Amino acid sequence: MTSASDPSARHDEQYGRRRPPGEDTVNLIEETIAAIVPPDEAAMRDARDHQARLTKPPGSLGVLEEVSVRLAGLAGQSPPPLPEPAAVAVFAADHGVHAQGVTPWPQEVTAQMVANFLAGGAVVNAFAAQAGAEVSVVDVGVAAELDAAPGLLPRKIALGTADMTRGPAMTPEQARRAVETGIEVARDLVSAGARCLITGDMGIANTTASAALIAAFTGLPPEEVTGRGTGIDDATHAHKIGVVRAALGRHRAAVEAGAPLEVLAAVGGLEHAALAGFVLGAAALKVPVVLDGVIAGAAALAARALCPDALAACVAGHRSAEPGHAAAVRHLGLRPLVDLELRLGEGTGALLALPLVQSAVRVLHEVATFDSAGVSGKDAGRPQVITE
Amino acid sequence: MTSASDPSARHDEQYGRRRPPGEDTVNLIEETIAAIVPPDEAAMRDARDHQARLTKPPGSLGVLEEVSVRLAGLAGQSPPPLPEPAAVAVFAADHGVHAQGVTPWPQEVTAQMVANFLAGGAVVNAFAAQAGAEVSVVDVGVAAELDAAPGLLPRKIALGTADMTRGPAMTPEQARRAVETGIEVARDLVSAGARCLITGDMGIANTTASAALIAAFTGLPPEEVTGRGTGIDDATHAHKIGVVRAALGRHRAAVEAGAPLEVLAAVGGLEHAALAGFVLGAAALKVPVVLDGVIAGAAALAARALCPDALAACVAGHRSAEPGHAAAVRHLGLRPLVDLELRLGEGTGALLALPLVQSAVRVLHEVATFDSAGVSGKDAGRPQVITE
Repeated sequence: MTSASDPSARHDEQYGRRRPPGEDTVNLIEETIAAIVPPDEAAMRDARDHQARLTKPPGSLGVLEEVSVRLAGLAGQSPPPLPEPAAVAVFAADHGVHAQGVTPWPQEVTAQMVANFLAGGAVVNAFAAQAGAEVSVVDVGVAAELDAAPGLLPRKIALGTADMTRGPAMTPEQARRAVETGIEVARDLVSAGARCLITGDMGIANTTASAALIAAFTGLPPEEVTGRGTGIDDATHAHKIGVVRAALGRHRAAVEAGAPLEVLAAVGGLEHAALAGFVLGAAALKVPVVLDGVIAGAAALAARALCPDALAACVAGHRSAEPGHAAAVRHLGLRPLVDLELRLGEGTGALLALPLVQSAVRVLHEVATFDSAGVSGKDAGRPQVITE
Repeated sequence: MTSASDPSARHDEQYGRRRPPGEDTVNLIEETIAAIVPPDEAAMRDARDHQARLTKPPGSLGVLEEVSVRLAGLAGQSPPPLPEPAAVAVFAADHGVHAQGVTPWPQEVTAQMVANFLAGGAVVNAFAAQAGAEVSVVDVGVAAELDAAPGLLPRKIALGTADMTRGPAMTPEQARRAVETGIEVARDLVSAGARCLITGDMGIANTTASAALIAAFTGLPPEEVTGRGTGIDDATHAHKIGVVRAALGRHRAAVEAGAPLEVLAAVGGLEHAALAGFVLGAAALKVPVVLDGVIAGAAALAARALCPDALAACVAGHRSAEPGHAAAVRHLGLRPLVDLELRLGEGTGALLALPLVQSAVRVLHEVATFDSAGVSGKDAGRPQVITE
């Protein structure tokens, strides 16, 4: 419930997506979830059988064989389509909890980094250029007015969340709209040709919201899932853990009830809710989504809580240095592909994993079988052991 | 010393590289080693300083920051050149120790897989296509006559090594020539435009020779460095460990003397010796070389023994499932970039790492600094902590 004196309500009125009169989007989330089907067991079996016939020792591609099998299950066919071209959506938003002093970085860095992304000067741009992926920046809640620019999708829902230690971070309507926005962005990128989606994020203080979400969805205590984000000292880290604990205490009823949208509204960020929708949108379209670090991990926990089968679309791109991320991927049952102590966000870890995912699928398309290549199999004409 | 009745000598005469009369290549190895200089400390410092000014939290690119610094040190400039285009050289050879029954795969699979590489049907081809790298196959010792084909570099030194459990695997001259061949291939690929070299290998039974080399260069016992290769049962694994132990026992004098060429000749493979030369050749030209798995790891130990500064050119592409590989990279002080339980060889693990190496260097070329992008630094206008 909002009132004219509530700043969130004013943001709603100012930034809310204008819906054409009569369009019913009330059920976009439910409709998307209804379109998500379980992995196709027959396609997964076909992919496994095909892997065993390829000119390589069985199992010798390790984790990548399972990636190819999972994506066959998602696509409902083996081989699954090559996951290219790929598109990164960097969901940007600010966080009311920044006022609690959880980070030494000023809030305006969110908007400044959005400008950096749009100018092509950030690490996500360099990694995307290397991997051949397109970058879009989605403003779902930056606490500043942003000028129109190519590559910027203006989808502002509020000028940042409210401070979760003083009340809910979002209204229920804001959380729902953010999830819908993520679904729509996934749909739009796939319509534009993307066959692999990459999660990106930007938002000063968003590792605090991520820790709260991960604690809420996994039941782990704040001290086990709250990390140092961009690099904070011991005192700030201890304070940050206390802030997460205070937020979870204030919203205990919502957390214990466990309804995903309510948990997102209580302690999440607008980008977390949008990323949860992005995962749902990808899963409904049977397009893989490579998850970046702790923000995406928190969002994927929310997406799985909304629809367990959405997990079949998710590939964990990398293992971030954040302890909450390790907890999130463990609870999701995902194995990160890259593990290089990155802790940058933006989508950078997921972009590093993209060629690995593409290579895994390409094997099913291009590698010859023992029969087709005329290569002898294991145990064919095994030589006698010559004893000394 | 060889005689007319020694099959190795006959192979020498038949397959030895034809040298133009008067050309003095006796000192190619020594000349190459003399051209290798230590990493440039000033360039490394410049790269570190530049990383600290880029629009990202300091250190947030983890292991990739150190990769960029090392390659600056190798190049002697910051930023170092982008490591592209890349070229894979798959050194193929057979192994006399195959007669000891160390693998269930028949020896003819080496030649069959070479044909598969040349037809574009192997995993190395699929991964190279994904990464945009060229594949060359270098026959340094396949135990079969191979027809000329585009992409095949005929550099056969012998029809495979001799059985290391019965005598030296190679003559001193064969080992030296194999190292020279690797140097020449590196030089030729760089002349053709490559700015990053990738090690590849093919040779049934070559994990046995790798284990013997790794034991010899690290002093570790055979049971700690001998793995299951392409996947062998417990009995074959135990037998393989015994074969490695027997070979090391027979060649104890050479191993304890520790002269790298003599160790290679005693228990190595022609592709190991060639790969050691490939590393030296890359280092002399200040071009990075991404190492694949256990075969490359064994060869890199030999290259480092020949010239410690050659290590500055090496990037460990991946951590193979072979236990000997973990030992090799630990002794080399390298951190593998990809760790996905691959155990295929061919260059596949190194190719997966190539985009990570390229991304690491691209950051130094393309990412904006805080100043240039107008992004506020950490601690700029830190907000007050609001106490509850």
